[in-house]
Amino acid sequence: MNDMLKKFTVTDKFFGYYEALIKDTVVPYQEKVLNDQIEGAEKSHAIENFRLAAKVIETEKCDEAFYGMIFQDSDVAKWLEAAAYTLLMHSDEELEKRCDEVIDLIGRAQHQDGYLNTYFTVKEPDKRWTNLEEAHELYCAGHMMEAAVTYAECTGKTKLLDIMCRMADHIYERFIEDEVPGYPGHPEVELALMRLYRFTKNEKYKRLAQHFIDVRGVDSDYFIKESECYNWTVWGNDCNNKEYTQNHLPVREQTKAVGHAVRAVYLYTGMADVAVETSDESLKKACETLWENITKCRMYVTGAIGSAYEGEAFTKDYHLPNDTAYAETCAAIGLIFFARKMIDLEKNNEYADIMERALYNCVLAGMQLDGTKFFYVNPLESIPGISGEAVTHRHALPQRPKWFTCACCPPNVARLLSSMGRYAWSEEGNTVYSHLFIGGTLDLTDTLHGKIKVETSYPYGNQVRYRFEPNDESMDLTLAIRLPLWSENTSIMLDEKKANYEIRNGYVYLTKAFTQEDMVTVTFDMNVKRIFASSKITADSGKVAFSRGPLIYCAEGIDNAGDVFSLRAKKDGEIEAYSSEKLNGIVEIKIDGYKVSESKLIYSTVRPEVQPCKITLIPYYTWGNRGINQMRVWLPEE
Amino acid sequence: MNDMLKKFTVTDKFFGYYEALIKDTVVPYQEKVLNDQIEGAEKSHAIENFRLAAKVIETEKCDEAFYGMIFQDSDVAKWLEAAAYTLLMHSDEELEKRCDEVIDLIGRAQHQDGYLNTYFTVKEPDKRWTNLEEAHELYCAGHMMEAAVTYAECTGKTKLLDIMCRMADHIYERFIEDEVPGYPGHPEVELALMRLYRFTKNEKYKRLAQHFIDVRGVDSDYFIKESECYNWTVWGNDCNNKEYTQNHLPVREQTKAVGHAVRAVYLYTGMADVAVETSDESLKKACETLWENITKCRMYVTGAIGSAYEGEAFTKDYHLPNDTAYAETCAAIGLIFFARKMIDLEKNNEYADIMERALYNCVLAGMQLDGTKFFYVNPLESIPGISGEAVTHRHALPQRPKWFTCACCPPNVARLLSSMGRYAWSEEGNTVYSHLFIGGTLDLTDTLHGKIKVETSYPYGNQVRYRFEPNDESMDLTLAIRLPLWSENTSIMLDEKKANYEIRNGYVYLTKAFTQEDMVTVTFDMNVKRIFASSKITADSGKVAFSRGPLIYCAEGIDNAGDVFSLRAKKDGEIEAYSSEKLNGIVEIKIDGYKVSESKLIYSTVRPEVQPCKITLIPYYTWGNRGINQMRVWLPEE
Repeated sequence: MNDMLKKFTVTDKFFGYYEALIKDTVVPYQEKVLNDQIEGAEKSHAIENFRLAAKVIETEKCDEAFYGMIFQDSDVAKWLEAAAYTLLMHSDEELEKRCDEVIDLIGRAQHQDGYLNTYFTVKEPDKRWTNLEEAHELYCAGHMMEAAVTYAECTGKTKLLDIMCRMADHIYERFIEDEVPGYPGHPEVELALMRLYRFTKNEKYKRLAQHFIDVRGVDSDYFIKESECYNWTVWGNDCNNKEYTQNHLPVREQTKAVGHAVRAVYLYTGMADVAVETSDESLKKACETLWENITKCRMYVTGAIGSAYEGEAFTKDYHLPNDTAYAETCAAIGLIFFARKMIDLEKNNEYADIMERALYNCVLAGMQLDGTKFFYVNPLESIPGISGEAVTHRHALPQRPKWFTCACCPPNVARLLSSMGRYAWSEEGNTVYSHLFIGGTLDLTDTLHGKIKVETSYPYGNQVRYRFEPNDESMDLTLAIRLPLWSENTSIMLDEKKANYEIRNGYVYLTKAFTQEDMVTVTFDMNVKRIFASSKITADSGKVAFSRGPLIYCAEGIDNAGDVFSLRAKKDGEIEAYSSEKLNGIVEIKIDGYKVSESKLIYSTVRPEVQPCKITLIPYYTWGNRGINQMRVWLPEE
Repeated sequence: MNDMLKKFTVTDKFFGYYEALIKDTVVPYQEKVLNDQIEGAEKSHAIENFRLAAKVIETEKCDEAFYGMIFQDSDVAKWLEAAAYTLLMHSDEELEKRCDEVIDLIGRAQHQDGYLNTYFTVKEPDKRWTNLEEAHELYCAGHMMEAAVTYAECTGKTKLLDIMCRMADHIYERFIEDEVPGYPGHPEVELALMRLYRFTKNEKYKRLAQHFIDVRGVDSDYFIKESECYNWTVWGNDCNNKEYTQNHLPVREQTKAVGHAVRAVYLYTGMADVAVETSDESLKKACETLWENITKCRMYVTGAIGSAYEGEAFTKDYHLPNDTAYAETCAAIGLIFFARKMIDLEKNNEYADIMERALYNCVLAGMQLDGTKFFYVNPLESIPGISGEAVTHRHALPQRPKWFTCACCPPNVARLLSSMGRYAWSEEGNTVYSHLFIGGTLDLTDTLHGKIKVETSYPYGNQVRYRFEPNDESMDLTLAIRLPLWSENTSIMLDEKKANYEIRNGYVYLTKAFTQEDMVTVTFDMNVKRIFASSKITADSGKVAFSRGPLIYCAEGIDNAGDVFSLRAKKDGEIEAYSSEKLNGIVEIKIDGYKVSESKLIYSTVRPEVQPCKITLIPYYTWGNRGINQMRVWLPEE
């Protein structure tokens, strides 16, 4: 399997905008935040923690204090990863120099034995490895391994890779050679070790990833024993709540997505990745079962997951409240990671469809259009006066803040949106899979002797064109294009004639010696669709949502005379979709609806009058960009 | 003002059932619970705590341990109050003897200086009065004062009254004479002191009640200072959360009902009661403002209050989620207390209407029809698999438990339902007010020289008949009958002719020298009504509820093929109401509706098919009596 990251160059308007935003705005902004140079943003101190740790290593003392979450290091790692992706897009000597300096600092903060973690180095040197449940050493290590692999991939420089291989070796020694029991409270290192393994080809890292997956939940009392043995806590987590940390059962026996949603999908990603590399059928089966449970019973229509603030967690099947949703940006990103690995296990449009849904809706909503503010929580209904204010809605902010005390989401968005090639494409033998529709150039010179160019104005335009630039006369290949489930009729034309193709599991397979003259044109059904939720989702009873292509829409107050909650969508009313300049350029939707008259009474026996009206809908990912507004995805029908 | 408790004898089927249930089942059951004689019920230990405290007083030592909530004493007080009411209805020497024994025990547990509280006596003798915020000494004292007044009223025995006057004197000495600052974290003593004042005519108790109300929130840092000074906590309450304890502002400046809902309405009851007795206009105004806020913005259609489990609290205007409602039984009872005092401030049917709504819907729902199980939380939607199980719904149980660790609600229901005369009637000069429609006999021999007999099959029957039994020829009086707001046309007939009457503030006033031949017949419009919520209540958008008379209805799974969430009420469909034997005899409602087909997909672009069907509705107060079922008050319309 080939990682398509370096082969793909984005050129289209939509993701081109995001890539440029990450490079020009988000990475510089986040660099400033990590260095505490943004006024009014939550204090980060993340880089400073590395300086303090380096001082400890070098002088064996440091009078200054660590600040931030116990996993503050991971913010630096994710930022470095995003920065590396932007360096791949456009060289930037100054940025690369600053990244190298951060990496030098990280190297100086590493202990002789390979151990790296600023919290423990600066603050609690004696407590290393004594609280795997909460202390997130393996989580931070995982993120830094991901940064290390990425930095090597994108810049060719291996200093951070060497640092993190030493850390991985240190972990290997502890948990494999010395057979110390344990597994991480927050999965992440598993998927990171798999990346490290694929890049370095060092089998130890695969074995270590596999080990953490295999032992998880086998001794499901491990965190209890650990807490009894070492008796310290970071947040006072209840180690008896095993579902929270997905160690209630051995992973192969888990059938429901439970607990902290980010932990869950990071774990499942690692499981799927190990299954890919080891052809472990029981692990694959477990991944499929968990995937089914998430996507058929526990996922919002935006691809968001995690219904409860309490534990940032999955709750129960079909419990998907809109206004109190947790729907963490990182969890949607994790779901994308999981989907991407499921694609590697089996090409099936179900996986890429969900990947697309989470990406274009929840993840993009996680960032202000200008790249400087972020949502951690992505509710499907926002009620000014209640959202962000009522005790039950403190998490569900009506506007994106500049940064967070726990700042996992912003750099996670940055690293995802700057590495789209990896998600848009895959290559297996002579087959090139087009999972996501992003305009750009896929350079297959090394493998299939040519390039594929994609032209599209997706997700608003309904066409994607694939052109071919063979090194020689032609490129022999099978182009496999996902048929999105949301498109009822997708036409596939080859050179303006209906193409000959096979369809398997929701992918169209076109095999040909493609020449420069060839063009594959895919035309989607981009009619606006009404979406109805299962009647088991009580929060959506009697309601309808609207989508166009991969985008889920919502009504926001500013487009609807300030009041969204008095609106009802007209059953089978007219729908109009048209281009609008607003919100960086969108396709806006107008539907027939009704406005319910306001009653002076809280409860009245008089049916409220309804006046016909037009309801304006915007893509969900653009909500919250124009001040505090009511917002609703699911509209009651009238 | 005359308390009508002792003058009214209930004889009708509906409340007759409840009175008998309280006497025959609830009071004996709760007595057993308090003595830890009910298998499978939560341990109470409440009586035993008094035994232990008596031992401490008498022998100055006790090796056994206090058990239960810090306010466990209040369970005994509320039970004693309920028992006293039943003794008024029917003498029961055995029960009275056992009550006297409990009272003896309480006396033995009292300190020389009047102080009474088993927790502090047994467990923390040095911490008396050092944590007014959490330790509930004044709350427990208040409940025992209420029991004392009631026991004296109902049995004529004053031993408990003497005990509690000594305790009240002790409190007076501390907070008035010695001028120790402070006010209770959980209001209750204010309204209790007012009862004590009215019964004993001792002005000190009124002054003390007034004092606690006047000082509350004036030093809004009091609980913070207290916690800094004494540095101990019961539950780790955040003393900076001043709204929780309604001390964020002086009470006269409070305009929104905030914080712990029971505390709030107990406080407002005390405020209204002081306003009644002192004609304090600013206090009356504050009560009116808070009443408006509750009943126009923060109350469920069932009369329940408190939208959030977190802090058992009011949240924000129009935030009234159905499935996660807290809607505590005690809070509805407190709202009834508050309404009752508002009636004393001003005769207006708004107050009695809400009193009736909370009573017939939320409070009655708080108890299993057989009197042996209780709801603490009264949601308006119950979702098996989620309710009581999801982390967000742990409080919203789908079935009534036998008892609770914090057992405030069950004895509160018992004392309310055994003292209906106080709520149904009031008397001012020659005017007799009929607020609630309960069949029975009102003995006005001492004041208006006769009796009024009420015949009705309310709340199911639509007629109430008032007959008169003058001592002599006739009774000169004004009969003032509430016109319920839910009845669009209420006819008032005197002796089968349209009566001559005045209407003021929703009361019909009939003045006459009533003779034995006279009969006033009130006929209500008991057609089933559709209820629509303000569009600001997002949880009820596009939904309808049904009521008949004072009763709010709901759909329960057992009557609807197990599935309520696939049902839609047909807009303007047929409605049928008929008597049914089920659930002790109810009027059941059948409405036209639709059943939405089940989709295999969580989200589908195919509009689900709908089949016409009949939907069966039962009175909300009877839900949860037939096993675990789906339940929904607000049905989406189709």
